[in-house]
Amino acid sequence: MNHASRQQSWKIQTELPVAYEIVESHGLLNPENPELLTIPGGGRGSGTRLVILDHSVDELYGAAVRAYFSENEVKVEYLTLPGSEENKSIERVLEVVNKLNEVGTNRLSSPPIVIGGGVVADVVGLAASLYRRGIPFVRVPTTLLGQVDVSVAAKSGINYGGYRNRLGAYTPPPRTLIDRSFLATVPDRQLRNGMGEIFKMALIKDLRLFELLEEYGAELIETRFQDPEPGSDGLPGTVADEVIGRAIAGMAEELQPNLWEKDLKRSVDYGHSFSPLVEMRALPELLHGEAVAMDCVFSALIAAGRGLIDGGRLERIVAVARRMGLEPSHPLFCDVALVLEGLADTVLHRDGMQNLPMLTAIGEVCFLNDVTEAEIERACDGMARLLGTDAGRPGRPVGADR
Amino acid sequence: MNHASRQQSWKIQTELPVAYEIVESHGLLNPENPELLTIPGGGRGSGTRLVILDHSVDELYGAAVRAYFSENEVKVEYLTLPGSEENKSIERVLEVVNKLNEVGTNRLSSPPIVIGGGVVADVVGLAASLYRRGIPFVRVPTTLLGQVDVSVAAKSGINYGGYRNRLGAYTPPPRTLIDRSFLATVPDRQLRNGMGEIFKMALIKDLRLFELLEEYGAELIETRFQDPEPGSDGLPGTVADEVIGRAIAGMAEELQPNLWEKDLKRSVDYGHSFSPLVEMRALPELLHGEAVAMDCVFSALIAAGRGLIDGGRLERIVAVARRMGLEPSHPLFCDVALVLEGLADTVLHRDGMQNLPMLTAIGEVCFLNDVTEAEIERACDGMARLLGTDAGRPGRPVGADR
Repeated sequence: MNHASRQQSWKIQTELPVAYEIVESHGLLNPENPELLTIPGGGRGSGTRLVILDHSVDELYGAAVRAYFSENEVKVEYLTLPGSEENKSIERVLEVVNKLNEVGTNRLSSPPIVIGGGVVADVVGLAASLYRRGIPFVRVPTTLLGQVDVSVAAKSGINYGGYRNRLGAYTPPPRTLIDRSFLATVPDRQLRNGMGEIFKMALIKDLRLFELLEEYGAELIETRFQDPEPGSDGLPGTVADEVIGRAIAGMAEELQPNLWEKDLKRSVDYGHSFSPLVEMRALPELLHGEAVAMDCVFSALIAAGRGLIDGGRLERIVAVARRMGLEPSHPLFCDVALVLEGLADTVLHRDGMQNLPMLTAIGEVCFLNDVTEAEIERACDGMARLLGTDAGRPGRPVGADR
Repeated sequence: MNHASRQQSWKIQTELPVAYEIVESHGLLNPENPELLTIPGGGRGSGTRLVILDHSVDELYGAAVRAYFSENEVKVEYLTLPGSEENKSIERVLEVVNKLNEVGTNRLSSPPIVIGGGVVADVVGLAASLYRRGIPFVRVPTTLLGQVDVSVAAKSGINYGGYRNRLGAYTPPPRTLIDRSFLATVPDRQLRNGMGEIFKMALIKDLRLFELLEEYGAELIETRFQDPEPGSDGLPGTVADEVIGRAIAGMAEELQPNLWEKDLKRSVDYGHSFSPLVEMRALPELLHGEAVAMDCVFSALIAAGRGLIDGGRLERIVAVARRMGLEPSHPLFCDVALVLEGLADTVLHRDGMQNLPMLTAIGEVCFLNDVTEAEIERACDGMARLLGTDAGRPGRPVGADR
């Protein structure tokens, strides 16, 4: 008998069509606006809807949300969850699952609605992805980070075992609704946090967006992306629309051809190579977009060290981060051992390759696979020099470690 | 300002190609057989492999598995998990995740290998599906149920909150390896358990398979699907091959065009409409295939009650179940309230529709959406009459409730 004999075999081959949309709509909570009621695929569905809010949204908009659904005579149950990064946990996912069981959510026609920041979007996204092996949901991001980054993502994820997004899925909600009027109540720091991801998008592919940040970044934060009072001559809402629109469009363009990350060379990973572990270790001190902005600078230091970008560009990058109130550095980014440990896990995540996106200009990237420990050390030194330096002092030679 | 205005919108549209194979191979644990080493996509990969066994497999084949990998000089770490239904739990999934973290499993080139029954296949399948939002794994089902049913599935799932498979995902392992020599050590009851799913497949689409079960079902269990001793005139291995092959091929044919269950009318749901809750409530008393076989009979009672099949066919169905040592009934299947509760959850799962597959002949189904409480009651009465009746007595009028 031939012990190594292959016998019958069967192959299953098919394709999963995936389509989802991100829709801007003003006045989402106006009871006359039907967007929140419409279920993906059309109609108003049936059965009780579960609406998940985060604490901040409940505090600020809870009454408006409840009025919206009751005026529209939709049966709703509510769940309010904390929105901080420590809550991107399996426990919170199971809390949502318990509530779905309680409500008796069915498979398609009563999709839950999540209104809040990136954390609850991730938690509900993963719960919906697992529930009955996947039910649709509707996502309403209320923070800047949520609107420009989470909004486009197919991914959901939770932190586990000290690793960021260690567990998750690729199951986008069929509809994401964006209303920038929510940003009126977002704290400054949370706006800067969102700016971190816009900054990344500008750096990897959009010089025009970078210039918009350079010119209007600080003012956009100050005016909270809102339209000026009628008659006043503040920054027109069209600038906010263009910045948010370019960030979303850029992200959509990058994700669509590589939604499941079969290609592990992803320019949108810029700012996400060294930062995940730093962010986790610094919790709750650093917000995601803050850590990402630092990684953008860290990576730019490596690029400058290799001469891929010149010192002038490096300074311009650091200056824009600072202008938006994003610290370019942090003590943990000066810790060579920690940064190397973070890179090692990133290499596992990229299946054994560094695949480090690196700037060759503002708006252009290449990929490196031969970054050395010595280069990391030099970049850590550069980060140390950026620590605590005067944000207002222009022209400081930040790349002077070369 | 128009509060209901739609502004910009973005659409992401793409397709996920999915391909996976089920490969029969004799002598999988023979160190000269390379099938277990090959990673999906070819080659032997790199990095430490995590091999997950269930308790029974570890006891019976642990030494052979360890010898296999050490003779092939592959770095391996092992995790042994209990294989009973109560362990299809989130806690076990996280146990696998912890081990993947510990081993440092990377994204693609060191896929974990699970060798065992359906429960560990589900647990590891879900862990792999979640880990880094999805890593490949290799599945080696060692039970009959695993080889004919789990082997083809794209799904993984765990029980939660008292509901069967409440949480899960559709992420098939790229390779499933089948070696029927494992069945030599599977206890009788576990073989009958697997027969439950083969029985279902025969009923919904394969009269030839039904006839094979009618003729050889009992003997296949007796000989454990093994080849006869050389020179003896036992049941030839080709019968075992044909039964397993037809069950797998039938399943593959049904799943491929509807892998994500976008169509909620699924003939493979036959036997899975009323049984999930009965199975959960009876735990640990009933095995999955046992509950499925009972549901097959229960549904056949409804079909006979409507005249979709005649009394002769109904008796033949009950007789085949009994011949394979599968009880056609259980006290919980006589409990109208419980069966109705189970159906209510199934209706939620089928998005508000009953979509009940019903036999119109042996090997043919239609779908019903108007089964009444009275019909359920009559079927429960029929199940009561089947309880404790003499399995050996032929020709008993089981459909006599009409």
